[in-house]
Amino acid sequence: MAEKFVSETNLKFLIHDVFDVGSLTRYPYYGDHNDEVFDMVIDTALKVGEDLLHPYFEEMDRRQPELLDGRVKVHPHVKTIMREFGAGGWIGADFPYEAGGQQLPLTIMLLSEFIFDAANYSAAVYASLTSGAAGLIESFGTEEMKETYLPLMMSGEWQGTMALTEPQAGSSLADTVTSAEPTDEGYYKLRGQKIFISAADHDGVENIIHLLLAKIKGAPAGVRGISLFVVPRERITGDGSLEFNDVHSAGIYHKMGYRGSPIVQLSLGEENDCRGWLVGEPNRGLAYMFQMMNGARIGVGLGATGIASAAYYASLQYSKERQQGRRLSNKDPESPQVRLIEHSDIRRMLLFQRAVVEGSLSLLVQCAYYHDMERLTEGEEKEKYALLLDLLTPVAKSYPAEMGILSVSAGLQCLGGYGYCEEFPLEQNYRDMRIHPIHEGTTGIQGMDLLGRKMVMKDGKAGELYLREVTALIDEALTVDSLAKYARSLEDALELLQTVTAKLMDVAANKGRDYFLADATVYLEFFGIIAIAWQWLKQALVAQKALDEGSAPEKSDFYLGKLAVCAYFFGYELPKISGLATVLTEAEGLTVEMTETLFDD
Amino acid sequence: MAEKFVSETNLKFLIHDVFDVGSLTRYPYYGDHNDEVFDMVIDTALKVGEDLLHPYFEEMDRRQPELLDGRVKVHPHVKTIMREFGAGGWIGADFPYEAGGQQLPLTIMLLSEFIFDAANYSAAVYASLTSGAAGLIESFGTEEMKETYLPLMMSGEWQGTMALTEPQAGSSLADTVTSAEPTDEGYYKLRGQKIFISAADHDGVENIIHLLLAKIKGAPAGVRGISLFVVPRERITGDGSLEFNDVHSAGIYHKMGYRGSPIVQLSLGEENDCRGWLVGEPNRGLAYMFQMMNGARIGVGLGATGIASAAYYASLQYSKERQQGRRLSNKDPESPQVRLIEHSDIRRMLLFQRAVVEGSLSLLVQCAYYHDMERLTEGEEKEKYALLLDLLTPVAKSYPAEMGILSVSAGLQCLGGYGYCEEFPLEQNYRDMRIHPIHEGTTGIQGMDLLGRKMVMKDGKAGELYLREVTALIDEALTVDSLAKYARSLEDALELLQTVTAKLMDVAANKGRDYFLADATVYLEFFGIIAIAWQWLKQALVAQKALDEGSAPEKSDFYLGKLAVCAYFFGYELPKISGLATVLTEAEGLTVEMTETLFDD
Repeated sequence: MAEKFVSETNLKFLIHDVFDVGSLTRYPYYGDHNDEVFDMVIDTALKVGEDLLHPYFEEMDRRQPELLDGRVKVHPHVKTIMREFGAGGWIGADFPYEAGGQQLPLTIMLLSEFIFDAANYSAAVYASLTSGAAGLIESFGTEEMKETYLPLMMSGEWQGTMALTEPQAGSSLADTVTSAEPTDEGYYKLRGQKIFISAADHDGVENIIHLLLAKIKGAPAGVRGISLFVVPRERITGDGSLEFNDVHSAGIYHKMGYRGSPIVQLSLGEENDCRGWLVGEPNRGLAYMFQMMNGARIGVGLGATGIASAAYYASLQYSKERQQGRRLSNKDPESPQVRLIEHSDIRRMLLFQRAVVEGSLSLLVQCAYYHDMERLTEGEEKEKYALLLDLLTPVAKSYPAEMGILSVSAGLQCLGGYGYCEEFPLEQNYRDMRIHPIHEGTTGIQGMDLLGRKMVMKDGKAGELYLREVTALIDEALTVDSLAKYARSLEDALELLQTVTAKLMDVAANKGRDYFLADATVYLEFFGIIAIAWQWLKQALVAQKALDEGSAPEKSDFYLGKLAVCAYFFGYELPKISGLATVLTEAEGLTVEMTETLFDD
Repeated sequence: MAEKFVSETNLKFLIHDVFDVGSLTRYPYYGDHNDEVFDMVIDTALKVGEDLLHPYFEEMDRRQPELLDGRVKVHPHVKTIMREFGAGGWIGADFPYEAGGQQLPLTIMLLSEFIFDAANYSAAVYASLTSGAAGLIESFGTEEMKETYLPLMMSGEWQGTMALTEPQAGSSLADTVTSAEPTDEGYYKLRGQKIFISAADHDGVENIIHLLLAKIKGAPAGVRGISLFVVPRERITGDGSLEFNDVHSAGIYHKMGYRGSPIVQLSLGEENDCRGWLVGEPNRGLAYMFQMMNGARIGVGLGATGIASAAYYASLQYSKERQQGRRLSNKDPESPQVRLIEHSDIRRMLLFQRAVVEGSLSLLVQCAYYHDMERLTEGEEKEKYALLLDLLTPVAKSYPAEMGILSVSAGLQCLGGYGYCEEFPLEQNYRDMRIHPIHEGTTGIQGMDLLGRKMVMKDGKAGELYLREVTALIDEALTVDSLAKYARSLEDALELLQTVTAKLMDVAANKGRDYFLADATVYLEFFGIIAIAWQWLKQALVAQKALDEGSAPEKSDFYLGKLAVCAYFFGYELPKISGLATVLTEAEGLTVEMTETLFDD
């Protein structure tokens, strides 16, 4: 098992040098914190990752959860993890003090979760889901709900979930049919099926609190009739004891990877005794759920980046140790072999991985930073950050998810045959990674969200704000000699983005939505590469300045490494956008117009 | 489990319409065969795939081979498979009559193997490895060897292997150290370790015949000192009985996929009693082994294509059945849901898969066709086919292996969460596929083979012959109105290929081999896309002509489908070459010049 799974240096580079998270503490809300506190949080998270999570990485995969007599049994270490996370204050660490949180910037909480994901993704999910579910109650629940649920969720005694998907609906939430019938007792009676619900039942906690979408009888059709409910597995009786709430575990999925977390099928109200409590107003459930969903989408990008980070360090270590072949220019078979890392092709695969991992992480921190700034500001500024976060969420979910697959695959490839075997972590990283383009909205759905919603909302204001952000960085980088060529490349890329987007808006106007969004997934890929180029230029600028100032000579290899990866990204990855732009501007409605019979033979 | 794993229509389209394999029967060597015979072989292979192999696809994955008391136990069905393959004449079916074969064109044998690979890749490997090993004995062995080994290998009673890799050498065959000491008895005493040897021990056969590379004591260093030996696990004594030959199974690999085949570590000569018999001349072993290796590389491309084919049909079936969401232009949530295949994004993923599968298969048949023509012709013509086959082998291995990963991933994505679960075959396809960029020479090695050897051998003659082949097709397609635009795109691509290649030859001349080959893997990808575009234009031309002639109206959807996939390939895949050309012409030696310390932090 590889020792290293994240770079502490890089985390602190992002926190202090690139995003200056310490500057948030000038606002009273974060006024109790400072740079030292943030470092301490990260140091503690690293220790948790190393001691509590990483040692169980392989074992939790091999001993996967099982459904026995209607209850899901998980690895016994899950209970320890949840309690330790609760005791350490990791669940809901970004909540306000009055809700029991530590009022940590999301930026810092996100980087802590990144560490946990890299250490053992399946193990980290329990707590992050609980944070998300508790967050919904904290934002939209009644005082009574907060008192009932938050303390025990945040202590890790109770698990939280988000329960959306149904058998007949899949990704199509408009087709939700789980029903909620009002009663005079203040609760609703729920009945229906939910599938693919993460951590929806397990014996590592005493109760499971589902934040669940259902339709109140008589509600409008489609997404406008969806409401949000709190549905505990065990409801709390008058005397405080727990009583089974008619939430049955109907099945468990046996998955290729991500096996340390149970994914469960639920059956609600089989005995007509499943009670749910409405959160917020009726029929506004989807809007509320989007708070958790957006967080979960960022969380998926983060999980993907974490897995890719662990795979990168495992392949880097192997490449530094394993002797294999000779330099291409060396024809002497009696000379000693060199290590893999001395081969250009291996270096290319390592650079690719680092480009994906550190580029993705930087974009994710950017999103968290926008979230924090949205919380701290008001009026137009607040709207700006909200729009930027909205726009970038599908990108920050999908670029890491899709490119993470290729990144881990490159890591596996560095090990040759050993990469395919269970004695190294790469094959598990490869299996674990593949869930990410699927859950919390497939890549196809993210593409439609980006192009069909985010780029057009408020007359394209989010896109304009984004252009301004990137342009500001370009202008700064143009003043630095060694980076000017990258700045010009990014300038060209941004122009291409505008051209392509304008072309697609024409398609929307002239040919309608089916044509407009036919290649939204390709647009997402195109947009994502440019966004990551932006983050690389941002990092390179900071690194170049640090080198020029000579303030931290012990880190000069790290800074030079950042410049090398930036060169890699602009040299090897950014050029992909030209082919994608061709697809997007010259597609002729092939997938819209073809008839299904053409797939027959 | 999905029913369909290959398209019979497509196989017959390739055999009769695209490659006119029947025309080979004008040569006396294949004179006993005709189109009906070829159809019968394919029909029989389909039946074998359906009845003998596919039903065990999942089970052989779940009950993987184990090493128990020094012997490898495999699924009991392996024994049946080997005997049935032997009885059916599938092992060495392309061998001459006098060697016990059926003198089948490789083109037909390859398509039969494709069916077996698609049905159950792990199960198909036993026989194809035995064919390859028997082929080496047939080509280079003594009469005595042929009499001793071929009948029992071709009857499926004995297993054949290729044993190259060693612990300290990995991909670097120059560092082979397994030693062979001559004796006066006509055999050599072998001693050494071999790792990652497929089917190197199992209880489905009575003996294992290793075709194994070793160094005779005192041989020159490097690949020029490698010899080829036959090393049976059980040697044949004077009275015909079998006697253990000191070939120990030292370990078995637990792999992510491809689990139905045992991959074994061998220890030879622990008791100084392992006997091997020299094949051909001393120190020429690698040249001989390349016959099997080249076949095995084509076999890897074929296996990858087969797995991708099975995944494509599983995802196509699901997409035709599963209801999910509505057309993007339909905002009415009360209208019925549509099936997945009605969504453009799903169609794009289906077209992508079909483009990869049928494009790869066409290129593989092209290679087999060159092989057959090489066998049938003499002099300059023979050389032409040999060079074309040599040139395209690394492409036919790597394009399917690398793109097959993405193709299966797209298939899995069509199923959403179900694609990630064990109840559908996609997750196993995904795991099985990942071996292909690794075994029989990694993609990196194929890249160096293509650019560093094949494109430069005989002053670039192979590349010139290839240009002529593609140009001939372009000229023909230019005369067909509906295809002229694709012909012009391919013309441009070919010009770009020449520009990029010329640029790299300059780099070779001016900066040496390290710079020349630094991005050989990228060159391989670039070259591969153009080669597949060539095969798609070739297929489209045949389909368009068939439509114009109206000779088979019942197949018009199939032909129109071919044109749609061709349009997809030229619209979505070929544009990728512009970005790759940028990388190849503007790379500045980043991976050659950077120091390893830049990976530190």
